[in-house]
Amino acid sequence: MNSLDPALNLLDQRREEALARLFDLLRIPSISTDPAYAAHCQTAADWLVTDLTAMGFEAVAHPTGGHPIVLAEDLSAEGPHVLFYGHYDVQPVDPLELWDSAPFEPQMIEVAGAGPAIRARGAGDDKGQLMTFLEACRALKSANGALPCKVTILLEGEEETGGKHLPGFLEQHAERLGKADIALVCDTSMWDARTPAITTMLRGMVGEEVTIHGPDRDLHSGYYGGAAANPLAVLSQILGALHDGEGRVQIDGFYDGVPEIPANIRAQWDALPFEESAFLGEIGLSRPWGEQDRGVLEQTWARPTAEVNGVWGGYTGAGFKTVIPAEAHAKISFRLVGQQDPAKIREGFRRFVRDRLPSDCRASFIAYGGSGATAMPVADPVFEKARAALTAEWGSEAAFIGSGGSIPVVGQMQQILGLDSMLIGFGLADDAIHSPNEKYQLASFEKGARSWARVLVALA
Amino acid sequence: MNSLDPALNLLDQRREEALARLFDLLRIPSISTDPAYAAHCQTAADWLVTDLTAMGFEAVAHPTGGHPIVLAEDLSAEGPHVLFYGHYDVQPVDPLELWDSAPFEPQMIEVAGAGPAIRARGAGDDKGQLMTFLEACRALKSANGALPCKVTILLEGEEETGGKHLPGFLEQHAERLGKADIALVCDTSMWDARTPAITTMLRGMVGEEVTIHGPDRDLHSGYYGGAAANPLAVLSQILGALHDGEGRVQIDGFYDGVPEIPANIRAQWDALPFEESAFLGEIGLSRPWGEQDRGVLEQTWARPTAEVNGVWGGYTGAGFKTVIPAEAHAKISFRLVGQQDPAKIREGFRRFVRDRLPSDCRASFIAYGGSGATAMPVADPVFEKARAALTAEWGSEAAFIGSGGSIPVVGQMQQILGLDSMLIGFGLADDAIHSPNEKYQLASFEKGARSWARVLVALA
Repeated sequence: MNSLDPALNLLDQRREEALARLFDLLRIPSISTDPAYAAHCQTAADWLVTDLTAMGFEAVAHPTGGHPIVLAEDLSAEGPHVLFYGHYDVQPVDPLELWDSAPFEPQMIEVAGAGPAIRARGAGDDKGQLMTFLEACRALKSANGALPCKVTILLEGEEETGGKHLPGFLEQHAERLGKADIALVCDTSMWDARTPAITTMLRGMVGEEVTIHGPDRDLHSGYYGGAAANPLAVLSQILGALHDGEGRVQIDGFYDGVPEIPANIRAQWDALPFEESAFLGEIGLSRPWGEQDRGVLEQTWARPTAEVNGVWGGYTGAGFKTVIPAEAHAKISFRLVGQQDPAKIREGFRRFVRDRLPSDCRASFIAYGGSGATAMPVADPVFEKARAALTAEWGSEAAFIGSGGSIPVVGQMQQILGLDSMLIGFGLADDAIHSPNEKYQLASFEKGARSWARVLVALA
Repeated sequence: MNSLDPALNLLDQRREEALARLFDLLRIPSISTDPAYAAHCQTAADWLVTDLTAMGFEAVAHPTGGHPIVLAEDLSAEGPHVLFYGHYDVQPVDPLELWDSAPFEPQMIEVAGAGPAIRARGAGDDKGQLMTFLEACRALKSANGALPCKVTILLEGEEETGGKHLPGFLEQHAERLGKADIALVCDTSMWDARTPAITTMLRGMVGEEVTIHGPDRDLHSGYYGGAAANPLAVLSQILGALHDGEGRVQIDGFYDGVPEIPANIRAQWDALPFEESAFLGEIGLSRPWGEQDRGVLEQTWARPTAEVNGVWGGYTGAGFKTVIPAEAHAKISFRLVGQQDPAKIREGFRRFVRDRLPSDCRASFIAYGGSGATAMPVADPVFEKARAALTAEWGSEAAFIGSGGSIPVVGQMQQILGLDSMLIGFGLADDAIHSPNEKYQLASFEKGARSWARVLVALA
């Protein structure tokens, strides 16, 4: 028998210690995409192993071809078996000059109208979130001597770079990990600061880097301009043709497998308090930009997109240089929904580019990520148990929502381990994850830990 | 009476010393566009003053609001008065990794089929060229004790950044400089390695840097993608719309003041030995890209262009980052012909951008350069005298040609000083000026100096 109140009391009493642990983890610059930070990713993994071991988990940082995967287990309980997923890697920090404090020196700040928050790269994505689960486990074990469920914890270090080594790891450990009854993932947001949420739809993602190759060297645009193919102009024409005037993606077959939202889900979403103008106003915008016949929630939760994430080429320094560059580059990502096939989207994009190349240019590509969309089995009673636990903690009915982001591991756990996921997270829309001044509300962290304690006891 | 042969003999005898002087000048990294190199621009100006003074010129490096302008005079001769123009500043060197040797450590290299050449940033543009004139003056003075003409030499240090301070300087010294009979400019190319040329048409240039501003911070493209305006996509759409499918520039009024080539000039150009496929083949291309109803010579000499010279924004590092950036940037240049008005072209481009902005984006602009096209008075007998002198040196009839490049000073000397220019240069199309591995043929340098000695004696 596992009781909840002593654990909640312990979480309240030991708030300072929990915060200090999070700050320690945030100080490690575990940027996974940049090879220069590889040693820091190892340090973060080791830090987590030490912390989990101290709690009484059997914890190991497994080497992969990239950054380690931390796997920890405490299977001593009688109850059901949950597999928790989080990631300890973080996004790059540029543009560094836009940060108000150093990204790896966590600061307590006050957010007007929202209370204290922790500012640091990774505070909201995903170190603050994963620590809510670890703190819940720590408190339950301290208070009751044991967890209410069997718990396996998997923390990866390549989420921000497409999680290249995770599928192989899941396959290698499929028998052991597949014994769990459900996966718990803490990498999503609340509906708003008062309303907790369980995310039941996730978009998939395909990333592509394209290079347009033209002349065999950089040219003077005075002497060659007008006659020589300009890769920057060609790239602009191709990227500029990706959407039509109504915001529809122009790649052949792009919308194959994209479903319309069922009426009951649309009704739920319509019932959510949501103002497009307020949502966009928070980021300095005023009206939806993409598909002109869809609302913002539908655009970001249930419609596929093509976004240009980076472009570079030619002279980009101070002053002016009249060059026609030999190459131009772009990074483009596609968010997928429904049954869209990542491989077909990638191939469709490449064909779209090649079909628009003048005869004197060629294109080369680098593939990043590649995962389909996923939808959760909300009819499973565990979803209602978790919803009740969250509602009890926050005092507002928890919502079932969609998410525009992509968490490829959810699809992978479904396909490789046969596990459905329950996505519960405590981020807020203004947390600026992936941006300068990323933050995580202190309430998200503290009530998040209390929420997980409640959910684990409810599932037991 | 000034005689030519002793000067030509001296140039031949003192080749090594002349080359050593040029190498000294090439070692000074006088990149004008980058403020970090300002001291080196001063060093280059001082080096030239020292060299000119040693030759017996009265030489001064005049401070400006930017890089100094070197002015040197030897008016002791009886003959006509020429004003020579060159520039000692050079282009930036990036991408540095594509250079086969350090850009400011000049090397002698062997160019297959073309003989020895000097490789360095500035070798062809314009240090090697300006030194041909200085070496000719040195040899004429040494051989004959005096120059055959009055010579004023003006060497600026901001040609590669639009020559911001030159017009003011010309105005300030208009009375003194306007006494010259003609300007001589050495910043152009030969027709080919055997055929010298006088350039009689120059395109003008307008440079613009545009920034598209969208959301007030960088956004996660998963959470906001599909709803938030993406400045990189907006910029691509705008730049992608600059040309239609036939290569015509789509800015309103862009072709106002663009003349068709007169029949006699077209006939001269048609008579030049020129193979489009060979010209393009040298830069790894095979067919003209711009206006589809014009040939390459016409495209690059007599037609206006819009070229994208640089684009940057979003995440451009290793790996992938799913960001919608707050800003996207581009540098665009326009080459002008005939009576196109630089101010109207600039305004037309800005209107073109603003007309295509979604309501949630705004654009800001930085102006660079801005000069109309110029045409030379080829009927003036000095052009035939110079043509004969060049023909005598090279053994092939010198050609009157056009140039796609822009030399704003030519228009400024016309407007401010009332001086026509004679553009004689010894560059070759494959000199890679503005690119990695810029070079200047040793024959250009040595026969260039001999050519100027012949021209000065012919004009006397």
